[in-house]
Amino acid sequence: MSRQALWDSILQKGTCLCVGLDTVRDLLPPSFRKEKHGLARFNRAIIESTADLVFAYKVNTAFYEAEGMAGLEAMEETLSCIPQDCFLIVDGKRSDVGHSAEKYAEAYFSTFAVDGLTVSPFLGRDGLEPFLARKDKWTIILGASSNPGFEDFQALKLEDGNTLFEEVMRKTSTWGSPDHIMYVVGGTRPGVLDRLRGLFPDHFFLVPGLGEQGGSLEEVCQVGFRGSLSRKGGLILNSSRSILYADSREDQFARAARKQVLRNIEEIKPFLT
Amino acid sequence: MSRQALWDSILQKGTCLCVGLDTVRDLLPPSFRKEKHGLARFNRAIIESTADLVFAYKVNTAFYEAEGMAGLEAMEETLSCIPQDCFLIVDGKRSDVGHSAEKYAEAYFSTFAVDGLTVSPFLGRDGLEPFLARKDKWTIILGASSNPGFEDFQALKLEDGNTLFEEVMRKTSTWGSPDHIMYVVGGTRPGVLDRLRGLFPDHFFLVPGLGEQGGSLEEVCQVGFRGSLSRKGGLILNSSRSILYADSREDQFARAARKQVLRNIEEIKPFLT
Repeated sequence: MSRQALWDSILQKGTCLCVGLDTVRDLLPPSFRKEKHGLARFNRAIIESTADLVFAYKVNTAFYEAEGMAGLEAMEETLSCIPQDCFLIVDGKRSDVGHSAEKYAEAYFSTFAVDGLTVSPFLGRDGLEPFLARKDKWTIILGASSNPGFEDFQALKLEDGNTLFEEVMRKTSTWGSPDHIMYVVGGTRPGVLDRLRGLFPDHFFLVPGLGEQGGSLEEVCQVGFRGSLSRKGGLILNSSRSILYADSREDQFARAARKQVLRNIEEIKPFLT
Repeated sequence: MSRQALWDSILQKGTCLCVGLDTVRDLLPPSFRKEKHGLARFNRAIIESTADLVFAYKVNTAFYEAEGMAGLEAMEETLSCIPQDCFLIVDGKRSDVGHSAEKYAEAYFSTFAVDGLTVSPFLGRDGLEPFLARKDKWTIILGASSNPGFEDFQALKLEDGNTLFEEVMRKTSTWGSPDHIMYVVGGTRPGVLDRLRGLFPDHFFLVPGLGEQGGSLEEVCQVGFRGSLSRKGGLILNSSRSILYADSREDQFARAARKQVLRNIEEIKPFLT
């Protein structure tokens, strides 16, 4: 799926909203909480209630690995019930040396056949090449994370005056094209997002950290969509907890998730047209 | 397992050799290659043939995720058949923001109940804290990787003249103690290992990259064991392909793996006493 195809799909759906399926058993309605396959059944209900509206789903492996094999089965079932016309991201932040990274590329781009995978760039070029070689898939490189720990290493100043996260994005951007590379840029630092949009006008940014992590959808859209009418770099805006847990009642959560999705879509709409 | 307990176990076993179960279907003897559960059956044969000799096993998640659910079942089966008296590492290089990192800590330290997990430090403190909070387990932080891509980011010079990987190790070492933090330090750059041993005399280093990646066991031992008689920082020396694929014949591979393990143990022995 090229950048052009991504834009076509976003404009057809009328949104770039992504639902993050960070599903936590303890937060589910009681009957789901008790059931072995509760995670998968809950996700299926969320997907059925929102798939006609949203652009993408993002599945974070951490939440499924936590439950061991039962969780991994729930992850597989979740991936398989996401409709073809939704962009499908696995948020795994995988990284390893070349010959192991090849196996991660095989896992997510072939075996689980998702559209995009988040990867950590810090092992350097040979650790990214197996992903980048799959030009039919999106390698979503961690650019600037949304968390407080961003300051510890990513924001360090280098000898030449650059910050590490900018150098990571600059260098990795030369290893492929904006037709198969996008960056994770947290929504909690609009100043950073603004600067990165200026430096990388052609790349899509996957933006987590909205809602419960404190990022403002409006601020993010204002700076991040600059130049979007040129259909170059766009945003994929991820929201998770505020949608999944909009209502904790068995007979209400799916409807409440849909309502929250519609609210988010309305907030984004002015910036997309 | 404290550092003291680690040393006791190493001295009792008489080695710090770790077998990396980077099991690749295409490299297995023909009957294993064709069989759905071939990976698990092969690993079991390797473990049965070597567990009385080696100190540790390391399971890299990439090789199992590549095969999807069948691979993950093989991983679970492999983890469960490693004897209690062997130190068990999952090499996942996991990392995420705090609330997701918590789930990875739960996955590997509780659900799969391994002794140590490799993690990537670049998301900073809140991304490491859930691992570091488990002082009964080993958080094995990526210090300096063994691959060529090490030069791309890890080796960058910072404004203050330090290199990034040294700053990562310096800062993360203040977030816990050498009784539950160790570092991955590649075996392919003895100069780097030498310098890091000088800077971090108290920490265990997990050393990959020996054998097929070009690291010399002897050189690594010479610099890395400095001060080992004080029983502070030690090494866990990982070897994978040269053991797993020492012989490709059905009736020979397990015996050949044991022979190769014995050869490695002999090479290490002079440095351990």
